[in-house]
Amino acid sequence: MEYQVFDTTLRDGGQREGISYSVADKLAVAKLLDEFGVGFIEGGWPGAMPKDTEFFERAKTELDLKNAVLVAFGATRKAGAKVDEDPQVRALLDAETPVVCVVAKSDIRHVERALRTTGDENLAMVRDTVRHLVANGRRAFVDCEHFFDGFRYDPDYTASVVKTAIEAGAERVVMCDTNGGMLPSMITKAINEVVERTGVPADRLGIHCQNDTSCAVANTVAAVEAGVKHFQCTANGYGERPGNADLFATVSNLQLKLGLPVLPEGCLEKATRVSTALAEIANIAPDTHQAYVGAAAFAHKAGLHASAIKVDPLLYNHVDPAVVGNDMRILVTEMAGRASIELKSRELGLDLAGHPDTLSAVTRKVKDLEAEGWSFEAADASFELLVRGELPGEGYARPFSLETYRVQVEHREDGTVVSEATVKVRVNGERVIATAEGNGPVNALDEALRAALTAQYPQLKTFELSDFKVRILEGSHGTNAVTRVLLETTDGERDWTTVGVHENIVEASWVALVDALTYGLAE
Amino acid sequence: MEYQVFDTTLRDGGQREGISYSVADKLAVAKLLDEFGVGFIEGGWPGAMPKDTEFFERAKTELDLKNAVLVAFGATRKAGAKVDEDPQVRALLDAETPVVCVVAKSDIRHVERALRTTGDENLAMVRDTVRHLVANGRRAFVDCEHFFDGFRYDPDYTASVVKTAIEAGAERVVMCDTNGGMLPSMITKAINEVVERTGVPADRLGIHCQNDTSCAVANTVAAVEAGVKHFQCTANGYGERPGNADLFATVSNLQLKLGLPVLPEGCLEKATRVSTALAEIANIAPDTHQAYVGAAAFAHKAGLHASAIKVDPLLYNHVDPAVVGNDMRILVTEMAGRASIELKSRELGLDLAGHPDTLSAVTRKVKDLEAEGWSFEAADASFELLVRGELPGEGYARPFSLETYRVQVEHREDGTVVSEATVKVRVNGERVIATAEGNGPVNALDEALRAALTAQYPQLKTFELSDFKVRILEGSHGTNAVTRVLLETTDGERDWTTVGVHENIVEASWVALVDALTYGLAE
Repeated sequence: MEYQVFDTTLRDGGQREGISYSVADKLAVAKLLDEFGVGFIEGGWPGAMPKDTEFFERAKTELDLKNAVLVAFGATRKAGAKVDEDPQVRALLDAETPVVCVVAKSDIRHVERALRTTGDENLAMVRDTVRHLVANGRRAFVDCEHFFDGFRYDPDYTASVVKTAIEAGAERVVMCDTNGGMLPSMITKAINEVVERTGVPADRLGIHCQNDTSCAVANTVAAVEAGVKHFQCTANGYGERPGNADLFATVSNLQLKLGLPVLPEGCLEKATRVSTALAEIANIAPDTHQAYVGAAAFAHKAGLHASAIKVDPLLYNHVDPAVVGNDMRILVTEMAGRASIELKSRELGLDLAGHPDTLSAVTRKVKDLEAEGWSFEAADASFELLVRGELPGEGYARPFSLETYRVQVEHREDGTVVSEATVKVRVNGERVIATAEGNGPVNALDEALRAALTAQYPQLKTFELSDFKVRILEGSHGTNAVTRVLLETTDGERDWTTVGVHENIVEASWVALVDALTYGLAE
Repeated sequence: MEYQVFDTTLRDGGQREGISYSVADKLAVAKLLDEFGVGFIEGGWPGAMPKDTEFFERAKTELDLKNAVLVAFGATRKAGAKVDEDPQVRALLDAETPVVCVVAKSDIRHVERALRTTGDENLAMVRDTVRHLVANGRRAFVDCEHFFDGFRYDPDYTASVVKTAIEAGAERVVMCDTNGGMLPSMITKAINEVVERTGVPADRLGIHCQNDTSCAVANTVAAVEAGVKHFQCTANGYGERPGNADLFATVSNLQLKLGLPVLPEGCLEKATRVSTALAEIANIAPDTHQAYVGAAAFAHKAGLHASAIKVDPLLYNHVDPAVVGNDMRILVTEMAGRASIELKSRELGLDLAGHPDTLSAVTRKVKDLEAEGWSFEAADASFELLVRGELPGEGYARPFSLETYRVQVEHREDGTVVSEATVKVRVNGERVIATAEGNGPVNALDEALRAALTAQYPQLKTFELSDFKVRILEGSHGTNAVTRVLLETTDGERDWTTVGVHENIVEASWVALVDALTYGLAE
């Protein structure tokens, strides 16, 4: 490929607080990235990190990459050492990757103060290491750390690092905005100056941006517009501090906005799926508002413009969501009209077009409920249950019905707080009573309800409440307070959200809880 | 100010899924934005949304803004209607704001297909509405919806909307990237063309960017670099789909990277605190990885470079974190260091400068509590009680102490839900037991506690719980869930907010409730 999409999710992305990949995770991440069509996967720092060493070892037999090659990351040789005796450099070769990327200091202040060596020795370290890698049959890339700050402070020195690396045989020299302080106009200006000053053509340069000005994606795009053909990203922008340039937004922008063929044919539409899968592996909740691939990236509050959106969706979306594997979502919200209810139902696989009476009934019901404080915009599962309840022929049996429940919370004299709930329900004609404790009233109710139902519905064991949001509704102070509860449930594969509204927070939670279990059991 | 910082958190930001401000929330948001130094606060759409009408009504007496003016948002007059008979335009004047911002279609396709009128009538709508606003003494801004898409499709028509608005007396014409599909280079190119084609100077234009390419901040900066002096943002980038240009990153970039004086002196260092407080009000977990203001924005993994970072922190940070009120250390906290604790205390009238030991003790306590999930950013009353508790000589007697409480919620067979609470407390040496019902468990507890205390503290009768927010803290699923409750109380004259954290929502509410009554009784 003309453009080098260089992914460093497994190396620099792992710097994000809270991420800790196992070797199996790393292998799974690499497979997904390859499927997405990146050209280079930086897998870690062999020798420095035992997990990374193991990753490269196992990759030799377990990874069968279609689009990407693996890259081992490391540093230039130690100051004052011989490159062929440096164990860290040795480990890079032992990883047996076709490409090695070494980081080099390119800001003279960091050379002197952090590395505690001279500018000349640093150049020798770059020269020796690159030559050694090339002599051993590797393609060598050089990451120039603190490139832009260094270039501003002492352009001569920073330029000399670039020239040295290229002359020693580096395939690419990567300008890293390590502290992330750049803006696009600064990137453009700096690259033009670097090219002029070094004589190195822009297509031998690469770019690596951190997101500290919230411009990492824009900075990467600006570098490509300035002629750079190698760019480093991480999936979902994971990385230290505000993170790195997000792979999905960067690639989508280059391909869809600038028409550059950065991925192999047929890969971009995997963006949403791969992004979500990588979030799961990293064990980080997907960012619903992420550009292109977030669940809300193409979500529209229906209301006023629903009919216009229905006719001309492309007038309201900057790209067709399908090209990145995403969907347009319609949020059912205040001022919901028939058009948006119909659209929303269709999205959930329920065609109301042929059922005008049902459509009217659902619209009326949603309006009435929203006037009472219900909100279905974030509660697709409750909305779907509501629609199904009105659809002729869809009438499904609720898996259980409530007789009574009682919840008690007690703060004892020794300071402990205990919660206990008892539910009396009918399940398939049978009356069941169950009592359970919990760490709070809703948890106790949840536990008691599960205790009552699990015999008949063992799949309940896989359900977990993953989020719980509570809101006291406006204009409902004091004794008339109305509480809205949103409950997110997961069974490990799917997530669904339900809503309950009541003046009593426990009852509102109960309503959402009943919908959550009903929805999960119905599928 | 030469630059117009136009905040639309309350209008466009409210489009974000899940945000639903009460009128009291809106007033609190406006106060914080004003404190941060924005010049314009777009408060909502009076007439169209009852809450917004009430907001502008209450703002007349309840808001005392130092830096900002309020802006009412609305639309141009209806097609075929007379502007002085249009009730929507009337409502904009009734809001009595110095500035009115009206949205106009500027993409001929939207004029014809969504508005279903002609290009000429749309121009007449712009002309009539702007003239009418100006004739009624308003400064008129015009938001040109789908500006960039429209300008690309039919530059003549879009340019004619700009010219019409300016000729009719609009102070600013705002180019809106409504679908959010632009990149910085496209923004620069388009603005240069617009200026050339219309003859309208760039400083009469404004910019409003959505974040669908992950470039909203960069696009806004690019527009300012192209000469635009009015830019619209939302706090934390809240908004529909991937959101809007984040106010904090945009302003920080302009001020710190380009040296433009966009905020009044002394305001930028409030960024972190204001950002967090606004997240609390919106009931959205603060984004720890947000540029500039996130808790992890300047967090470094203290491995290799720890000592180098200590010696030369500015070599590892793109700006000094203090200039945006943030801190370099890795902290879960919004209010990390001594400096901010001292600042915050001074704001509450408690001078800790002369009490270094107290300052250390409070700082340590806040850090410990915040690590457990407490947040004092939006809970001044709890923070003040905490500081007073540590101040020598300030030691005040808590008005009561708890022995036990018990709360019960019962859902009966007839569907009614009843809550009952019993508290046993000591008040001035006396043991008091009281039982009360409520519409929910917290209300029942509140009523029982009042019943126990009112004999000795009759002023309790004026206290009312005015808001109640609950958040299940991130990363605390299932049985380890931790709940944070924010309680707002009013006595009709003052409002104060308290916080409680516990795995049990009732206990967390109790803690906040005790602080609420204690604070109210102490004054």
